[in-house]
Amino acid sequence: MRLPMLLRDPVHDLVRFEAEEEEIVPALLDAPEVQRLRRIRQLGVTHLVFPGAEHSRFTHAIGAAHVMVRLIRRLREIHDELPFWQRLASDRARDALAAALLHDLGHGPYSHLFEEAIPGAPHHESWSLAIVRDPGTRVHQVLAARDSGLPERVASLISGGDEDSHDAPGASAYPLPYLAHAVSGTVDVDRCDYLLRDAHMTGVRYGLFDLDWLLRSIRFSPVGVGPGDGGPRLAIDGMKGLPAIEGFFLARRFMFEQVYLHKATRAAEVLIKAIFARAARALEDGTRLPFVPEAIRLASRKAPVPLGAYLDLDDVVVGAAFAAWESCDDPVLADLCRRLRHRRLGKTIAIYDAGGPGDEAAAIARVVGAARERTLAAGLDPDLHVYVDVAEDGGGFGDVAASAQAQLEVVFGDLRARPLAEVSPMLASLRNTPIRRVRVVVPPEIRDELAQALGGTPASAPVSALVSAR
Amino acid sequence: MRLPMLLRDPVHDLVRFEAEEEEIVPALLDAPEVQRLRRIRQLGVTHLVFPGAEHSRFTHAIGAAHVMVRLIRRLREIHDELPFWQRLASDRARDALAAALLHDLGHGPYSHLFEEAIPGAPHHESWSLAIVRDPGTRVHQVLAARDSGLPERVASLISGGDEDSHDAPGASAYPLPYLAHAVSGTVDVDRCDYLLRDAHMTGVRYGLFDLDWLLRSIRFSPVGVGPGDGGPRLAIDGMKGLPAIEGFFLARRFMFEQVYLHKATRAAEVLIKAIFARAARALEDGTRLPFVPEAIRLASRKAPVPLGAYLDLDDVVVGAAFAAWESCDDPVLADLCRRLRHRRLGKTIAIYDAGGPGDEAAAIARVVGAARERTLAAGLDPDLHVYVDVAEDGGGFGDVAASAQAQLEVVFGDLRARPLAEVSPMLASLRNTPIRRVRVVVPPEIRDELAQALGGTPASAPVSALVSAR
Amino acid sequence: MRLPMLLRDPVHDLVRFEAEEEEIVPALLDAPEVQRLRRIRQLGVTHLVFPGAEHSRFTHAIGAAHVMVRLIRRLREIHDELPFWQRLASDRARDALAAALLHDLGHGPYSHLFEEAIPGAPHHESWSLAIVRDPGTRVHQVLAARDSGLPERVASLISGGDEDSHDAPGASAYPLPYLAHAVSGTVDVDRCDYLLRDAHMTGVRYGLFDLDWLLRSIRFSPVGVGPGDGGPRLAIDGMKGLPAIEGFFLARRFMFEQVYLHKATRAAEVLIKAIFARAARALEDGTRLPFVPEAIRLASRKAPVPLGAYLDLDDVVVGAAFAAWESCDDPVLADLCRRLRHRRLGKTIAIYDAGGPGDEAAAIARVVGAARERTLAAGLDPDLHVYVDVAEDGGGFGDVAASAQAQLEVVFGDLRARPLAEVSPMLASLRNTPIRRVRVVVPPEIRDELAQALGGTPASAPVSALVSAR
Amino acid sequence: MRLPMLLRDPVHDLVRFEAEEEEIVPALLDAPEVQRLRRIRQLGVTHLVFPGAEHSRFTHAIGAAHVMVRLIRRLREIHDELPFWQRLASDRARDALAAALLHDLGHGPYSHLFEEAIPGAPHHESWSLAIVRDPGTRVHQVLAARDSGLPERVASLISGGDEDSHDAPGASAYPLPYLAHAVSGTVDVDRCDYLLRDAHMTGVRYGLFDLDWLLRSIRFSPVGVGPGDGGPRLAIDGMKGLPAIEGFFLARRFMFEQVYLHKATRAAEVLIKAIFARAARALEDGTRLPFVPEAIRLASRKAPVPLGAYLDLDDVVVGAAFAAWESCDDPVLADLCRRLRHRRLGKTIAIYDAGGPGDEAAAIARVVGAARERTLAAGLDPDLHVYVDVAEDGGGFGDVAASAQAQLEVVFGDLRARPLAEVSPMLASLRNTPIRRVRVVVPPEIRDELAQALGGTPASAPVSALVSAR
Repeated sequence: MRLPMLLRDPVHDLVRFEAEEEEIVPALLDAPEVQRLRRIRQLGVTHLVFPGAEHSRFTHAIGAAHVMVRLIRRLREIHDELPFWQRLASDRARDALAAALLHDLGHGPYSHLFEEAIPGAPHHESWSLAIVRDPGTRVHQVLAARDSGLPERVASLISGGDEDSHDAPGASAYPLPYLAHAVSGTVDVDRCDYLLRDAHMTGVRYGLFDLDWLLRSIRFSPVGVGPGDGGPRLAIDGMKGLPAIEGFFLARRFMFEQVYLHKATRAAEVLIKAIFARAARALEDGTRLPFVPEAIRLASRKAPVPLGAYLDLDDVVVGAAFAAWESCDDPVLADLCRRLRHRRLGKTIAIYDAGGPGDEAAAIARVVGAARERTLAAGLDPDLHVYVDVAEDGGGFGDVAASAQAQLEVVFGDLRARPLAEVSPMLASLRNTPIRRVRVVVPPEIRDELAQALGGTPASAPVSALVSAR
Repeated sequence: MRLPMLLRDPVHDLVRFEAEEEEIVPALLDAPEVQRLRRIRQLGVTHLVFPGAEHSRFTHAIGAAHVMVRLIRRLREIHDELPFWQRLASDRARDALAAALLHDLGHGPYSHLFEEAIPGAPHHESWSLAIVRDPGTRVHQVLAARDSGLPERVASLISGGDEDSHDAPGASAYPLPYLAHAVSGTVDVDRCDYLLRDAHMTGVRYGLFDLDWLLRSIRFSPVGVGPGDGGPRLAIDGMKGLPAIEGFFLARRFMFEQVYLHKATRAAEVLIKAIFARAARALEDGTRLPFVPEAIRLASRKAPVPLGAYLDLDDVVVGAAFAAWESCDDPVLADLCRRLRHRRLGKTIAIYDAGGPGDEAAAIARVVGAARERTLAAGLDPDLHVYVDVAEDGGGFGDVAASAQAQLEVVFGDLRARPLAEVSPMLASLRNTPIRRVRVVVPPEIRDELAQALGGTPASAPVSALVSAR
Repeated sequence: MRLPMLLRDPVHDLVRFEAEEEEIVPALLDAPEVQRLRRIRQLGVTHLVFPGAEHSRFTHAIGAAHVMVRLIRRLREIHDELPFWQRLASDRARDALAAALLHDLGHGPYSHLFEEAIPGAPHHESWSLAIVRDPGTRVHQVLAARDSGLPERVASLISGGDEDSHDAPGASAYPLPYLAHAVSGTVDVDRCDYLLRDAHMTGVRYGLFDLDWLLRSIRFSPVGVGPGDGGPRLAIDGMKGLPAIEGFFLARRFMFEQVYLHKATRAAEVLIKAIFARAARALEDGTRLPFVPEAIRLASRKAPVPLGAYLDLDDVVVGAAFAAWESCDDPVLADLCRRLRHRRLGKTIAIYDAGGPGDEAAAIARVVGAARERTLAAGLDPDLHVYVDVAEDGGGFGDVAASAQAQLEVVFGDLRARPLAEVSPMLASLRNTPIRRVRVVVPPEIRDELAQALGGTPASAPVSALVSAR
Repeated sequence: MRLPMLLRDPVHDLVRFEAEEEEIVPALLDAPEVQRLRRIRQLGVTHLVFPGAEHSRFTHAIGAAHVMVRLIRRLREIHDELPFWQRLASDRARDALAAALLHDLGHGPYSHLFEEAIPGAPHHESWSLAIVRDPGTRVHQVLAARDSGLPERVASLISGGDEDSHDAPGASAYPLPYLAHAVSGTVDVDRCDYLLRDAHMTGVRYGLFDLDWLLRSIRFSPVGVGPGDGGPRLAIDGMKGLPAIEGFFLARRFMFEQVYLHKATRAAEVLIKAIFARAARALEDGTRLPFVPEAIRLASRKAPVPLGAYLDLDDVVVGAAFAAWESCDDPVLADLCRRLRHRRLGKTIAIYDAGGPGDEAAAIARVVGAARERTLAAGLDPDLHVYVDVAEDGGGFGDVAASAQAQLEVVFGDLRARPLAEVSPMLASLRNTPIRRVRVVVPPEIRDELAQALGGTPASAPVSALVSAR
C-alpha cells in the first residue's frame, strides 16, 4: 500500500492517487503484468511515421485511471438524484479505478496485427480477462487481497458490463451499467485518454478536445431509471455540452484520418503482418529461427498459448527476435526484417472516387495485377509484398445494433433525451460519411515504374500515387 | 522610423518587425488613428458574457500584421513558380503589411450596432478607406511620406482588391489579386488572427486551429495564370493541407456558435442598440442629454459626420456618455443605461424546430405578442425591450456569387484544382447546414411569467426558454 | 442566487462556482461595486508597453476566487490533522471566497499613482474596507443578507486578519489566521492569480509557475498549534514542494524585472502622475477644466471624498477627462494629456554601478541638473518632465519585522519547520539581492542631446541611455 | 534525397527541412546508424520514475537539427556585420545541420552507466566520431557523397571545434569556431532541445524556457574579431536577452534538481551499474550467460569492441539480455535483473548539512557501515547493493579553465562584453551554489530497519531517510 502517489504526466500534468479508494492504483502499478505495459508501445509502428509517438501502454493506463478519478468526482456531484443504491459508493469507485487501469492489460506487441497474421491467435480482450482472473498473476492477487469478489467485478467492468458481450463470454453484468460504460463505451476513460495522449505525442494537434468541459457536461439520462429499465445511463447535458461532445468526435475523426489510418502507418503495419506470417510459415516448414518467443512458436503451430508465455511477449522480446531474424536462414524473412529496421516501407496506391462497388473492385484488380507482376519481376514474393488495405472507421458512435443503453444521448432542460446525431448536424454528418480508404501497398522498388504504368500520376506526387476507380 | 520592433503577444508569443520592408508597421503604430484602436474592444459587449474578452482592436491589428509577415515568408518560399512580375517584391510586401495593420481602422465602438441603430450611419469599411485617403490623418502622412501611391494601394488592398467591391466604390484593382485576398478573403490574415485571439481571450478553446500547418499548406492555384485569367490565386495543398483547412472552418463554426452568436452576447447587443436608438430619438425630440459625442449628435440628425468627429468616438467616450446618461432627463434612456452597467441583460426565448417559414413566423408572433403585452404591463416600452433576433452564419465559405477568384480551391498533386466542399465531406456538411438561431429577447422582469404562459418550459431551464415552432 | 456558475477564463480555463458555499461568488458578482472593476485595468498603463495587458481587475477578482476554491479543496484534504474548531467549515469557506473576490475592490484607476500624486488622497485598501462595511453598497447588502456578521468577517480577512494591521485600524482578528494569510500573505490567492494572469496577458512567459504543484505542496506547519500559539499556519511541504515555491518566487522576480518595473512602464506612470499633479494645481489655481470627476475635484482641494464619488471613478471616466483636457485652458495640462494619448513617453537614463550612496546621489544630481536645464530650454516645465524614479522590490518574502505567523515556512518529514531562505540557496540569493533600478525620466525631445552631453553613450543604444554612478 | 520533409513534433510542433541546404537531414535520417537511435531512450531509466520519459535519442536528434535551422536563420539576420568569409554560407549551414543531427550518434544504451561500470569501456563521444569517420557506415557514405571533406568537418564540429579537445584527439579546428560552439557549447542546440524535450516528456514544467526569445537575443560578440583573435563569438544581447538566458540556466538547474539527479532516478542507475558490473564479473568467471551482446562480452574481457558490435547495442538488445538473465545460472545477477523489471529500486539515505568534508565523510561511513552490515544479514552482497552516490552539477556555465571563446558573454549597447555572472546576480548565485547531493543507496529490504537504527527519522518520511552530517 503506497499512498499518496503523485506523478507527472505530459498530458494531464499532475496525476494524483491519494484518497483511500484510490490506493488500488499504486498497489496494482507495481504488478509485473502492469509493468510489462512499459514495454509495449501504445501505437505500435506509428512512431516510424510520427517520430514522437514512442509512448507506452503503461502511461496510457495511468492516464485512463486519472480520467476515471476525475469522472468519479463529476458523477458524485450529480449522483444525489439517483436512488442511493445506484450511487457511486467507495467500493464501486475502487472497482472502476482498477478496471480503468487494467482495461488494456492483455495487449501484446502489435496486438491486432499479431492476431490477424496468425489465424486463431488469441484476442487481446480475452487476455485482459484471463490475467485478471488467473490466481497466479500478481494483478489477481492484489485485487483478491482486498476483496475476493474484486477480480470478477473488474472483469465484468472491462468486458463492458453486459452479460452478452462477445468479448466476455460468461461475464456477469456489473450492477451499475453506467460505470461499465465509463470504462468501455461511447465516451469512456480509455478514449478520453488515448485521443489526448496520441495527439500530444504525435504532435498532431487535431486530437485535442476539451476534457474539462466534457466531464462537466456529463449527466445522468432520465431514461432507464424506472424498474426494469436497466438503471441510469450516462448522457450529455444538451444546454452546455454540445460543443464539447462535438469536439470529442471531431478529435476522434481527425486522429483516424491523420494518424491511425495514415497511409505510411498502414504500410508499416502491413510489413509487420508480413513478418509474422512469414515467420509462422518458416516455423511450420521446420526452418530453424533464432530467438523465437515461446508464444509465437506455439501460435504458429496453432497450439494453445499459456498465459505465462503470452506475458513474456513484449516489444523488447519481439524487437530482439526481429533483429535476430535479419541474419536467419530464411532469406525472405531476413529481408522483411531488414526492411522494417531500415524503414523501407511499402508505398501506397490510393483507389478513390469509386463509381460503385464493382468499379472499385475492378480498379483494385487492375492495380494488384500490375503490382504483383512487377513485384515478381523484382524478385520478391507478391504474397508478402502486395496487399490490399481497406482502412475504415465509422466514427465511433457505437454499434447501432447495440443495446440501447450503449447509445449516448443528449438531455435537455425539458428532460427529453435525444440521440446525438439528431441534435448535432455536424455529428450527423460525421456519422453519415464514414472514413473509407482503399489502398494497394506495393514494395518501394516498383513504385515509380508501377505509377507510370498506371498512367496519369505525375512524377511529382511526393509519396503515393492515386488511381481513380472510374 | 523605429526598428527593430519586438513585442510580446498572448497569442503569437514573440512578434517581430525587423526587416526593412516591415518598418512600415512600427511607423504606423504611433499614428493617433491606430492608437485609437486601443480604446475599442474587439468584441464589443462580449466581455459581459466571457469576462476575459477585454482585448482591443489594437492588439488584433498587430496580430494581423504578424500573420501577414508569416504569410509573406510562406509565399516567398513558393513564388518562384510565378513569373517575376507576380512575385512578392519588397514594395508589395510593404503594401500588404500596411493593409493588414490598417484593415479594421474604421471600426468605431460597437460599430455594426451603431450602424444598425442609426439609419444612414456610416459603414465602418468606408471609414477605413477615408482614414487612409484623407491627407489630414497621420496614417495617410506616414504612408505618403514613403511613396505617394502607397495610400491608394493600401486602400485597394483593404477593399478586397476588386474594382467592383461594394465597400470601395472607385477603388482601383490591386495588381496582385492574391495579395488582396490575403488581406480580405476566405482565409485571410484578419480571420487567422481574430479566431485565435478571440478563442484565446474568451477562454473557449474551440477556436484554436493549426496556423503553422495552415500557412505551410498554402500554395498557388495553377488556374488563372494564363493571360487574362486574373493572375494566380491562393489555394490549399490537398495532399497535406486538408485537415488544416477543415480545422480552420470548424474553429470558425465553433466560435460563431459558442461566442459570436451566443444568446447572452446577442441580448447585450440588443441593449446597446436600444440605447443608441433611444438616445437618437431623445436628441431628435430636443431632450437635453449630457456629454453627447459630436458624431452621435450629427448622426442622430442624419447630418454628415466629419472624419475628425468620427475618430473622436471610442469606447471611453461612448462609455462615459452611457454613464452620464444614467442620470439624464430621459428616464427611459437612463433606465437602459443602468441596465447595461449592472448587466441586467434581456432573456431569450429560442424558437426552434420550425416546420416551415410559416410555422416559424407564427411561433415568433405568438411569443412577441405575449412578450409585448407583459412588457407593457411591467411599465416598459415594448419597442425598446422586445426584439426578434435572427442570428445567422453561412460558414464563411465566401459568396457563391462572388468572383471565381475569391473561391478558395484545393490543388492536388495532379494539379487539378477543386472546390473545398467537393473534397471534404466535413466542409460540405458545414456549408449545407448554416447556423440559424431565432430568438425573442425579452426584459428579465417578465421572463418567468412569460415562460409559464408559453407553457412546456420547466422552471429548471437555467437561462433561456425554448419555444417550438410546431 | 445563481448557481451553478460556469465561466471560461484565459488563464484557468474552466472556472466553476457550483457548491452551495460558493454561491456567494455569483451573488456578489452582479453588485455594481464589483462590476465597476470591469472598467479598471489590472495593470494601469502597462498595456502601452505590453499591448496585450488590457485585462481588468474584474477578471483578476474572479481568478482569485477560483484559486481560493482550489486552495480550500486542498486545505480540506489535510485539515483532519487540526482540532475540529480550526477546520475549514462551510461558513469559513464562504468567508474566504467572498474575501478573495473582494480583496481589490477599493482600487481606483491608476490607484497608487493617484494616491502618490495627490497628497492625502485615500489609500485603496481602506476603500476596500469602506465598501464592504458601508450599508449603502450592494456588496454589503449581499453579504449581510446571508449573515449579519459576514461583512465584518470579510473585512477582517481582507485586512490580513491581524488586529494591528495598519491597513485596517479597528479590524478584529479573524478566528483562523491561516485563512487570512491565504487571502493576503506571502503565497496568497491574490498573487497566485495575478502573476499567472499578468504573465499570460503580457505574453511574457516568465511569470508562469506550477500552481497545481504549489497547491498540492501546501500543508500546515506544526508550529503554532499549541494553546496561545495563534493557531496553525500555512507552510510548504519541503519533501515535495521546494521547486514549486522556488518557481513561484522566481516568477515574481521576473515579472517585477520585466514588466512591473520596466523602464517604459515606469515612464508612462510618471506621465500619469504629472497629469494628476498638474490637474490638481490647475484646479487649485481656479482654472476651469472640463469634465472633472467629483472625486478628483474634492481630492485636489484636500476635501474628503465620499464613497459614492470614489466609486464613480474608473478608467472610462478618467480616460474621458484626459481626453477632454487635451483641449482645456491649461496648455501644459493639455500637452501632457496629448503625450499620453499619442504614447510620447519619457525616456530613461539609467544610473547604475553605484560605488556607494554618495556616488549614486552625485550621478543622479549630475543627470537631473543637465536634464532640467535642457528641458527648460525646450520650453517645458522641468518639475513635470524630469523625474527621478527609484524602482525597488525586495522579492516579496514578507516583512522581516512582521508577525512570525506571516513568515512562510518549510516543513520536512521530521516536522521541523525552517524559513524558506534557509532551505533554498536560490531563494536566499533572491532575498539578498533585491531589485533596485534608479532612473532619471526625461522628455523625449531632449533625449539624444542629453545622452550626448552625458557622454559615453553610443547613439545606437536603442531606448535608454546608461550613466555609471562611478 | 527526400525533400521537403515535414514532421510533427510534440515539442516544436511543425518541424520542416525544406531548403536545399537542409536536404542533408532527411538524407541522413534513414541511415541505420541514425535509425538505431530510435531504440535508445534519451533518459535511460528515468521513465521508471517519470513514466512519460519514454522518448528516444532519435526524436532529440531531430529536435537539435530543428533548433539549428532556427539558429542559422537568426545568425543570418545578423551576420552582415561580419567579414564575408566568416558568414554562414550554405555549405557551412549544411555542416552545422549534419553535426546537430549526429552529435549524439555514439550513445549506447545507458551509455555513461555502461562506461562507468566496465572499466576501459569506450566513451560515447569517441564512438560518435568513429561512426562519422568510418567509411563503412551509411552516415559516412551519405556525407562523403555530398562532399569528401564533409565527414571530417562534421567530426570537427561535433568535437567542439577546438583542436585540443580531449574528446577529439586529432580533430582539426573548424574554420568558424562560433558554429562549433553552437553545436556544443554553453548554449547549444543540444541543450536547447533536450531541456525542453525532457521537461515536456517528464511532465515537469520547470525546464521550459523561452527559446524564441533566447534565439532572438543571440548576437556576435565584438571581441575576437581582430586578426588572430579567433573569430567572432556567440554572445547574448544584454539589453534584451538577460531574462531569456537567466530562464535558460534556471531551467537547467531545475531539471538537474528535479529529474536528472532525482534520488529514485539515481537509485535506478545504481541498479543498472550493478547489473553491468555483475554480468562482467560472471563472464570473467566463466559463467554461461544467455544472450550476451557481443559488445558486452568483449568489453567484459577488456577486448577492443569493433564498431559493428557497438552499433548492435541498443535498448532492445540490452533489455532482452536483462530479461534472459532473470533465469540465468548466476542467482545474484538473476535477482538484480528481476529487481529492475519489477522496479524494486534501492532506497536512499540523504547525507546533508555537512559541517565540513570530514563531517560528511564520517556521516557517510556511519551509514555505509550500518547498511552493509544489514545488507549482509539480509543475504545480499553489499558490494552490489550499497552505494555512495554523489550527484553534482556546477550549473553548466562552462569550464572556467576552458578557452576564453567558450565563455558566453553578454554584450551591451556600448559594445562592452561582460561575463554572464557579472551582469546577473541570479546567475552568479547559481554559479556559486552548485548542486551537491550525497546519498547512500541501500536495498529496500533493510530500509526501515536502517532508518530506525540511524535514529531521528520518523516512520512517516515517505520515501527517503535523512542523515545529518553533524
